[in-house]
Amino acid sequence: MDAISILAKKRDGLALSREEIRFFVRGCVDKSIPDYQAAAFLMAVRINGFTHDETLYLTLEMAHSGEMLDLSDIPGIKVDKHSTGGVGDKVSLILMPIAAAAGLKVAKMSGRGLGHTGGTLDKLEAIPGFQVSLPISAFKEQVRTTGISIISQSANLAPADKLFYALRDVTATVDSIPLISASIMSKKLAMGAQVLLLDVKCGSGALIQEIEGCRQLAKNMVEVGKAAGIQTIAAITDMNQPLGNAVGNALEVREALQVLRNGGPADLRKDVLALAAAMFCQAGLCATQEEATALAAQQLESGAAFAKFVDFVRAQGGDSDFAKLPEAGTQYAYRAAANGWITGFDATLVGKAAMVLGAGRLRMEDQIDPAAGLLLQRHIGDPVQAGDIVAVLHTNTQDKIAPACAMLDKAVRIGQSPLPPPPSIYEFIS
Amino acid sequence: MDAISILAKKRDGLALSREEIRFFVRGCVDKSIPDYQAAAFLMAVRINGFTHDETLYLTLEMAHSGEMLDLSDIPGIKVDKHSTGGVGDKVSLILMPIAAAAGLKVAKMSGRGLGHTGGTLDKLEAIPGFQVSLPISAFKEQVRTTGISIISQSANLAPADKLFYALRDVTATVDSIPLISASIMSKKLAMGAQVLLLDVKCGSGALIQEIEGCRQLAKNMVEVGKAAGIQTIAAITDMNQPLGNAVGNALEVREALQVLRNGGPADLRKDVLALAAAMFCQAGLCATQEEATALAAQQLESGAAFAKFVDFVRAQGGDSDFAKLPEAGTQYAYRAAANGWITGFDATLVGKAAMVLGAGRLRMEDQIDPAAGLLLQRHIGDPVQAGDIVAVLHTNTQDKIAPACAMLDKAVRIGQSPLPPPPSIYEFIS
Repeated sequence: MDAISILAKKRDGLALSREEIRFFVRGCVDKSIPDYQAAAFLMAVRINGFTHDETLYLTLEMAHSGEMLDLSDIPGIKVDKHSTGGVGDKVSLILMPIAAAAGLKVAKMSGRGLGHTGGTLDKLEAIPGFQVSLPISAFKEQVRTTGISIISQSANLAPADKLFYALRDVTATVDSIPLISASIMSKKLAMGAQVLLLDVKCGSGALIQEIEGCRQLAKNMVEVGKAAGIQTIAAITDMNQPLGNAVGNALEVREALQVLRNGGPADLRKDVLALAAAMFCQAGLCATQEEATALAAQQLESGAAFAKFVDFVRAQGGDSDFAKLPEAGTQYAYRAAANGWITGFDATLVGKAAMVLGAGRLRMEDQIDPAAGLLLQRHIGDPVQAGDIVAVLHTNTQDKIAPACAMLDKAVRIGQSPLPPPPSIYEFIS
Repeated sequence: MDAISILAKKRDGLALSREEIRFFVRGCVDKSIPDYQAAAFLMAVRINGFTHDETLYLTLEMAHSGEMLDLSDIPGIKVDKHSTGGVGDKVSLILMPIAAAAGLKVAKMSGRGLGHTGGTLDKLEAIPGFQVSLPISAFKEQVRTTGISIISQSANLAPADKLFYALRDVTATVDSIPLISASIMSKKLAMGAQVLLLDVKCGSGALIQEIEGCRQLAKNMVEVGKAAGIQTIAAITDMNQPLGNAVGNALEVREALQVLRNGGPADLRKDVLALAAAMFCQAGLCATQEEATALAAQQLESGAAFAKFVDFVRAQGGDSDFAKLPEAGTQYAYRAAANGWITGFDATLVGKAAMVLGAGRLRMEDQIDPAAGLLLQRHIGDPVQAGDIVAVLHTNTQDKIAPACAMLDKAVRIGQSPLPPPPSIYEFIS
């Protein structure tokens, strides 16, 4: 077996065996297969595709390329949640404490944001003092005692994914469903949870914009998860506009806190409850979606979810009275240029506008400003008059307001007839 | 413009512009585009193909990635010849002095053999003293005065080709017609000849085994050559068996000398004359193939071609009385195992048998033995009796005889009914 014949096979569109995929992944990790062969492999997979079996093999080999967490000594049902990434997606911040308050054990590894999408780690780090680089032993202990813990992607977990991910980013092979699936699922497998909720974002702000591609990815990941013995359910949810109103790290934490305090935007609350309910059913806590939704809502109404969030933030070293959340020095009202109805957003551009204001990073090494971002005041379907505030921009860099507004000019679509808002959850796949 | 969007375009099967190809080739040469992006590019081109325009642009940019020779100050018609590589292909050794004897100026850059194919440089270096690393000025002066000179591929000529060639070799992207075409033609363009004869080998010992692929490559290169202002003609010639009898460097020089002395295998002589005639017509020396064949034959019959070869070898520092051509210590008769007719060869395996005996290299850094190789005594269509000598193996490494014989057992096909020999030249494309 050698790298060149494996490349030739994939180049010709033939299916690779488990042994060939193992040889290739191990070779990439131990550097006996150089980056240029890995890059040619990724391009061949991107163009010619992977069968379900190949995707499963790749995922398993990537998961086993590093440490595999063993959470079996922690009592309770260990759950994990992953979003494919969106704009203003603060669901995890709310859903994790709801799940922990309901008695599940939440063990989550999370990443940072890049480009127009935010990352849960960045959002939590907007809370002064919050630490995400825990040793595995401390992480596990916190899952056991607090019922919820989060760590950043460690070098020891799925190192093959780190390597492939970095190469995909620079070889135009990011948008491959089997490669996205293997990237996500290899990390989830290495994390060792028993129940997994996947949130596949769909629309103008998502990695995959068409429902059919989202369905393929969701099915692909659910199949891989089940084949690996994880109770997996995927939701396909809307990302044609930011979720809730806030885009930006401290702004999103504030909005999450509103929901955790049993308030906040109704749509956001409804989505979180539906996703939490799906997780509860998958974990066997409830028999029906209705019962599960009620159990989730009860965690918000009783204050249990909020209390769990406070415990969680305190356990990770964060300021748990949330008094010191950073606030931007400048706020600027972005106003509608015409009368009509909001008919759509280029949500990617909305995310990029927030990034330009300081909320995100263009390159992984860029610094972000936790206070920066924007608060949306209008959503799809809302009527608007010229001069109405569509969004309030928050920044500490005044000269970024003009470029951000120019992006919003392109991002916000105002039409002459009303359009119903898109459904926020399209379907569940399990 | 950036490398990732160029990769994305080719990944999606779209045609690249001249500016995009220029950006990519220049980036690879100046190392602002790393090897892994170049490798992903080559895989995308191999799978999705290139249009004629893209192939032309790539060829031009690769040619202009380094020094472009200017031969315009040398009087006469400057000609070049290239073979896509075969087993026992000593045509250049004979054709070059025929052309020079007829008054053409032969300016040839050549490569070394790798794997089962031989290289003209290795063959000439079997002549003691022969130097192939001339300074450009000395090379040009020799073209002017002797009418024929050869140099090894220089780092300054088409450096992009060196880079891509090395990567193609390790990324399973060798067998791409546009990439083969650009590799060959970029070097030919950089050499600055006015007339170019391409010999596209077809069959079991060739890079491309099917006639249709050879036709595509030939047409592709002829179009690129013409678009770049070079009088280009391609011959598609048979490589289902070695050309002539000799495979191996000194053995091939001896056979070439036989033909140059107006003897040698009749088939080899016939092929060389047909190819020389095609070049003569293309160069405008003759109006018809018949007239041109006669002019070429005359160079052999008069001794002018042999004299030119002697001048050429002497000019490059070689021993021009050919008395010291190396001879192998051991000769071994490989015999037929059955009665019948020779119905075919795996010519690649014949080449590999010669390589194992010492005539070729598996890796570029391997040393070759100029004396090693084999002399074929039977060709396709010949009758054979069990025990007849099919080939005489020449080697200085006795323990390589058994593995070489095992290869010949697989390479030589003996059937129970006679098969006509294949035509040696299938067609010309101009």
